[in-house]
Amino acid sequence: MNNNNNLAIGVFDSGMGGLSVLRALRQTLPLESFIYLGDMARLPYGTKTPETVKQYAIQMARLLVEREIKALVVACNTATTAALPYLTSMLPDMPVIGVVEPGASRAASVSKNQQIFVMATETTIASAAYQKNIVKFSPEAKIHGQACNLLVALAEEGMVDNDIALATLKHYLQSIKEQDTVVLGCTHFPIFKDTLQKLLGPSIHIVDSGETTADALLDKLSANQLLSTHQTPTVQYLVTDSIERFKKVGPLFLGHALDEALIELVDIC
Amino acid sequence: MNNNNNLAIGVFDSGMGGLSVLRALRQTLPLESFIYLGDMARLPYGTKTPETVKQYAIQMARLLVEREIKALVVACNTATTAALPYLTSMLPDMPVIGVVEPGASRAASVSKNQQIFVMATETTIASAAYQKNIVKFSPEAKIHGQACNLLVALAEEGMVDNDIALATLKHYLQSIKEQDTVVLGCTHFPIFKDTLQKLLGPSIHIVDSGETTADALLDKLSANQLLSTHQTPTVQYLVTDSIERFKKVGPLFLGHALDEALIELVDIC
Repeated sequence: MNNNNNLAIGVFDSGMGGLSVLRALRQTLPLESFIYLGDMARLPYGTKTPETVKQYAIQMARLLVEREIKALVVACNTATTAALPYLTSMLPDMPVIGVVEPGASRAASVSKNQQIFVMATETTIASAAYQKNIVKFSPEAKIHGQACNLLVALAEEGMVDNDIALATLKHYLQSIKEQDTVVLGCTHFPIFKDTLQKLLGPSIHIVDSGETTADALLDKLSANQLLSTHQTPTVQYLVTDSIERFKKVGPLFLGHALDEALIELVDIC
Repeated sequence: MNNNNNLAIGVFDSGMGGLSVLRALRQTLPLESFIYLGDMARLPYGTKTPETVKQYAIQMARLLVEREIKALVVACNTATTAALPYLTSMLPDMPVIGVVEPGASRAASVSKNQQIFVMATETTIASAAYQKNIVKFSPEAKIHGQACNLLVALAEEGMVDNDIALATLKHYLQSIKEQDTVVLGCTHFPIFKDTLQKLLGPSIHIVDSGETTADALLDKLSANQLLSTHQTPTVQYLVTDSIERFKKVGPLFLGHALDEALIELVDIC
């Protein structure tokens, strides 16, 4: 127990997808307060170069640190891949967690045949981030990475099980073969989990990297004696642009309305 | 005829969609040189607020003016809506053309029943930009605006007539009723023109705002005695990030490869 226990946890993402991670974090850590920062002005990160994304991630982390936080969650696969090592060394005094390693670790532990199918954006697949992290835990694992760019746009339209969504999911699942485990390697994808489970059948394990990140954060806060004892936790939302779109589309990922939430516009440049 | 005739025409867009406009410009104006600037670092503009897009558009226009141009084409519906009046007053000494008015004018002139269906991004539809411009030419016109966000992602995947594209186009065309004219109000959409024409049948007129913008520019250059006499025109490409993605996806809109093109990375901030 130290003085920082009741500080908030900072969470950032390129936009709204990270709200699926925030949802999982709040379910696993109901006594914690959070400050969520969405870079609506500069989304998506997935089509930008790693150098640009790294600079953005550093700016996002700095803004959250200025608000006083006790831990940082990089709730974006692209930013995790481009900037997690740098952010970890930049912030030696607090836990810094990304979304890739917890999902990779879970996939390696639940797959019986070590054949793993990773669904992510083109950039995350091209970076081989899951590939590299999964083999750290299971050197013999065979990973098939499937770029699923269209799912981001479908998710933002709230189309999760209509004709278009089904045609798109079937298209991307064409290349699934022996794999017994599917990793949702993009924060936009958890909303397809039920539809995917129906298409894949009950024998396939689906790993939601938001849920695994929440478990990993619980472990780290606990190990560092940083768990909150706060009985009335708060959630603050900060965005760099487009409050109206955040309010409209965000609930698809967060699971509840944002109408009553205080959303603050912040300047990041 | 004046000293500026052989200067290039500046063209900017949030990313790659504007290359469909450049393609039309080059077909209509084969003796002209062009400098195309794609804001790959900050795309898409369609989800950002008009104030932010206006600031971006001013920066983009300034950069092109520094390179010496004789005319400016805003090859992006969102930027046209947010910034065209400002850019026109900012640059009183050169023709400044956006993509909305030429398409609106053409739609008003070709529609027999003055029932017009506009396909565009959610932001363009919400701005009622085509609505306002079409009624300037045809006060009695009835316009139905259809937000077609998914088509942007499909276009960038090069999916124009597979199962997913057909399901998506049919979904968006469900609301077409009496309309005899369809306006492609997003620079990403011309690549769906053939598929749309098959789905709609030959009696429906499809207006490509890139082609109409090229015709409007030809008229303005001609009226201002600014047409080029250059026999070996050049095309330069400038991007604010992601040269590789520009090279890979750009050809879908431009109609030819960019492998050999000199693409320059520029800093806009």
